[in-house]
Parts: sequence; structure tokens; C-alpha cells
Amino acid sequence: MTVNNTPRVTIATIADLAGVSVPTVSRVINGRSDVAVQTRERVEELLNRHGYRRRVVAARPTSGLVDLVFNDLDSPWAVEIIRGVEDVAHEAGIGTVVSAIHRRASSARQWLDSLRGRSTEGVIFVNSMVEPSLQGGLRRLNIPLVLVDADGIPQQDACTIGATNWAGGLSATEYLIGLGHRRIGFISGPPRLMCSRARMDGYRAALESAGLPVDDGLVQQGDFYHESGFACATRLLALPEPPTAIFAACDQMALGVYEAVRQRGLRVPDDISVVGFDDLPEVRWCSPPLTTVRQPLAEMGMLAARTVLRLAKGEDVESRRVELATELVVRDSATPPREG
Amino acid sequence: MTVNNTPRVTIATIADLAGVSVPTVSRVINGRSDVAVQTRERVEELLNRHGYRRRVVAARPTSGLVDLVFNDLDSPWAVEIIRGVEDVAHEAGIGTVVSAIHRRASSARQWLDSLRGRSTEGVIFVNSMVEPSLQGGLRRLNIPLVLVDADGIPQQDACTIGATNWAGGLSATEYLIGLGHRRIGFISGPPRLMCSRARMDGYRAALESAGLPVDDGLVQQGDFYHESGFACATRLLALPEPPTAIFAACDQMALGVYEAVRQRGLRVPDDISVVGFDDLPEVRWCSPPLTTVRQPLAEMGMLAARTVLRLAKGEDVESRRVELATELVVRDSATPPREG
Repeated sequence: MTVNNTPRVTIATIADLAGVSVPTVSRVINGRSDVAVQTRERVEELLNRHGYRRRVVAARPTSGLVDLVFNDLDSPWAVEIIRGVEDVAHEAGIGTVVSAIHRRASSARQWLDSLRGRSTEGVIFVNSMVEPSLQGGLRRLNIPLVLVDADGIPQQDACTIGATNWAGGLSATEYLIGLGHRRIGFISGPPRLMCSRARMDGYRAALESAGLPVDDGLVQQGDFYHESGFACATRLLALPEPPTAIFAACDQMALGVYEAVRQRGLRVPDDISVVGFDDLPEVRWCSPPLTTVRQPLAEMGMLAARTVLRLAKGEDVESRRVELATELVVRDSATPPREG
Repeated sequence: MTVNNTPRVTIATIADLAGVSVPTVSRVINGRSDVAVQTRERVEELLNRHGYRRRVVAARPTSGLVDLVFNDLDSPWAVEIIRGVEDVAHEAGIGTVVSAIHRRASSARQWLDSLRGRSTEGVIFVNSMVEPSLQGGLRRLNIPLVLVDADGIPQQDACTIGATNWAGGLSATEYLIGLGHRRIGFISGPPRLMCSRARMDGYRAALESAGLPVDDGLVQQGDFYHESGFACATRLLALPEPPTAIFAACDQMALGVYEAVRQRGLRVPDDISVVGFDDLPEVRWCSPPLTTVRQPLAEMGMLAARTVLRLAKGEDVESRRVELATELVVRDSATPPREG
């Protein structure tokens, strides 16, 4: 059980502040629908602001389940994270409930309602903007929350597990500089994602520390999907003075770069070097095999599961923010630039 | 609730046949550990042989969960199936519990034991050999079972959902014949899998109906992983008279073929045509984009979820064996063979 050292706000206090009865506040906490929307919103806002947590009178019964929530199940890296979480949960005799909330707030609320109907040891959100109301709802139900590779700035009390995105961006760019490249294109992810910003900052830092100019014309904004890698690379290759290497902030975009290079009648790495980010299982098998920054996705899933199960037992964790190391994996997609 | 039309065997009968007490049979059915191993095995064998099902006295309470079980979560197609199942389950307000049993019998038993601790609407096994004892265990607990793309020969009373593997193998091969290829290599999956045998039979049928000889030297046995596609293609390309096209029985092996072609200094499709099977999302983005037989993995997951939820409600299904259509998706990896 979590030991709470701060003075605990009571339902009576919230009821008083909201000007409603104690049973009304209870109904909001329990997710009952027989409360007027405006009242519910006012009470929820007060519960969040005062950090209300349900009083724990006895050990919570073991649910035998942990929840793993994605925005969308549309990426091959999802299966890597599922594998890591399932591995640890399975070992602990616990089932892994996988959900996609499809970026819709209504879906997130529906999901939270379903959690009220059954219990869970805890929740792992992957790469999701966790709305404050959802986070507040979990806190009130005393359900531990761990964020994996969270976008946005996480709220203070959530545990987050990420990878060293900045260091990864740095090492990929340093590697290309070391091969002799001076004009290195960069295809970023969506700037609203912290992991995306960190990779870009690593790219800039490597250029700057090598005394190379950061040419904004060589930076293109993608969205982590193949199509955007293809479109951004097509633009980069059409520049009057194109880059000799492209660093794509994820593997899927790097595969889009491959196709743009092929459609221009060029070859990787002879005509242009490419480096990706993630090390998805399949990039060992693209032609040529992709040099990329390995993000330990399965290990991140494993650590997330271990963390959430420890929190469920009321144990402390050493740090509420952990970054696992990324590592450059050198394969065949980058070589020194042509003399010219 | 399922209506059982056959005379129901009772616990008392089983106890009588096994020469043990009624409470002992109950303990076996409920998965209790305080039963000698030999006794448990004898009782389980009798329960299976007589098709014992737990008597249903009242509607089973809704668990709000459906179980999706893989051998291993090591393939990008797993996420496609998860997406399909989750989509339907989410819509029904039901959580999807994803497990990997890692091909170990002990793991399967552990998993079944965990099911006794919590309830489930039903179970979907993907591409798994479901042992008779596991299937018997589920039946005794009155838990509906659906098999997706089952390997081996499914037991009569299990619902199975697959794809038209034979027709897919036929259409891929017919397409290559239509382009003018006469020497078409084939890389099979493991022969113990029914889906694998069906694809190979489709390949043979296309050759035979075009009056072409089936040359066993052009058939290599892979295992559905990249490495085997690479190794098999390397052997095919080293033949004195190599094939002008290779049909790989899954996309991952087709990507292995790409790499074997590249390492030999050849190009797809100029020097050799390649066709895959599955249509994984990423093969749109290999270079060149892969021509392949689409297997509707997400739709198979959706249908499996709908079927298991219908069975859970005691509804009948139209057919206990459904195959969804495969479809040839033509992209850029196959062309007519060079004149020669």
C-alpha cells in the first residue's frame, strides 16, 4: 500500500468546496452516471486540484491483470513493447490487457469506465498524451500509472520510462560526421513529442560540437510514418545541393528514405548514406540492412511492467524518470561520401 | 448459454469410472493442486473422453475480458491480429488480454491455471498447436475457443478462422506464369503447418495446370523467418540454372530473398522477380515495394473476436471453419523475365 505523507483531503471537504452532498462526490469518484455533467466536472476539477485519493482500508485484492494502453496499434514497434510487458507479467502470473484508445477522449473515458468495472494492478500508457482528467481518475482509484516514452511533459507524480533519445540523436549524427559527411539531412518526428525534440537536439548538438553549421534547409519535419520519410527525402534529394547523408528520426521514415532514393535512380549507401532510429526487427532485413540507433523497446516494456507491479505492491521506486540507453547499430546503409 | 443436446456425463460417473471420490474429481476440474499427479491425469483423461462440461446453473457473469494467445510475440503480423481483436472487443467494452505461451506446455498449463483465477468471455489461439488437454480444460470450464490460422488438424468442435492459403499460393504462382516465368522457385514454410502446406499445394497446382513441370530442385524449405528466406534464396541463386522468379511463402522470407539477391550483386525485379505472402504493412515500404498475397490479418482478428463473443453469449455460428479471401497485391517486385 502506498503510504501517503501529505495530509489527505476528505470527501467531505470536496463536497463542501463544491457545494454538493457527500454522496454526490462519491458518485463522481465511482464513475456513476447519475450526476449532472456540470457537477461532475466541478467535482472532478476539485478532486484533481486537491489530489484526492481513495482511502485504502485494506490491501487491494490482486486483480491478476495489468493494462497496457496505446494510442493506436499501428506500428511494428508496438509488438516489441507488448512482448516486454507480457514477458514480465506472465512470469508474475499476471495477464496483460492491451488497449488502443485511438486518440479519442471519449474512448479514453470509456476505457477508464471499463476499469471501474474490473480491477487492475496498474496501467502502462505508451507514447500517449495522458489527459489530466484521466490521470486524476486513475489516482482517485489508487491505480498506479507508468508512462512509456511519454510525449508532452509528464505530470510530476507519474513514473516515466524512456530511452536516451538525445544521446541517440547525437551518436547517429557523430557517426555520419566521422564518416566524413558535412551535409547531413535530418527528418524529424512530430515536434509535440518530447522524444522527437530530443533526437533533433542531439542532431544539432553533434553538428555544433563538430563546428559544422546547422542548415535549416536540411531539416524536414516528418510524422514518424513511412510516407513522411519518403516525402521529406524526396524534397531533400531535389535540393540544388542535396545532403550526402540523411538521418531519419525513426526506422519507418528511414525506409521511406530508401524508396525515395530508389525512385530517384540512386543507391543506398553508394549515393547517399541513411541512418535510422529504433532498430525494429525488420530493418536488419531491409536492403541494405539499416544502420540505426537501437531503442531497447522490449526492455522498456519489461521495466514498465516491473515498475507498475512494484507500485501496485506499494513499493517505492528509485527514480520516477528512467531512460534506458540507446546504442548505434552499424550495418550497411552508411559509408563515407563520394569524393566530389 | 450453450444448449447441450447430448446426454451429459456427471461428476459422479467420472468418479466411479476413475475409482476416486466425487470431491477429488471436483478438485481436478477446478485445477486444485492437492491431487496426486497420476490421479489427476487419469481423471482428466476420463473427463476428456466423455466430454465433460461444467453444469451451467445460471448465466455466467460477464468477465469483460477476452483472451488472445500467441505462441510467441515475435512477428510483425501479431500486431495486425491484436489490432483486429482489440478493435471489436473495445467496441463491445471488453478488454483484450494478450499472452504468449512460448511453445512450452508448462507455460500453457500456467496460463490455464491463471484463467481459473479470473474469468474470460473466451479464448482465441493464434497459430498455435492447442494440446488436447488444454482444449479439454477450456471445455470443462465452459470457455469458448476460437483458433486463428491453426496449425495441425483442429479438433472437431473448435471454431477455426483462416485465410484461403491454397488459393493465395495459386494466384501468386499464376501471376508469375502469366508474366512469362517458367522456372519459378518456391520457399515454403514449415511443413507441419497446414497454412504452409496449402500455399505449397497452390504453387504446385498452378504449375501443373499451366503444363509446367514441378522441379523439386526449385523448392526449398524455410521456416517463415527472414534468415531462412535468405539462405534458401542463396541456394536457389547458386543453381547452375537458377529460377527467374521466387515465390516466398511469407513476406519475412521474401525480404530475406531481397537481401540474397542484393548480396549477389543482382536487382529485384530486373534480374529476378519476387512475390511474398501476408502483405505486412512494412512491405509497401521495402525497396522495391513487394508484390504479395494479402492475408487479411486484422479482419481475421476481428472475425475471431466476433465469433468468440457470440459463442460466449451461447449463440450459434454459421460455420465452425471460415476462410477469409486472400488477394494478390501487385507492386514493383515482379516483371517479365529477361530474354535469354
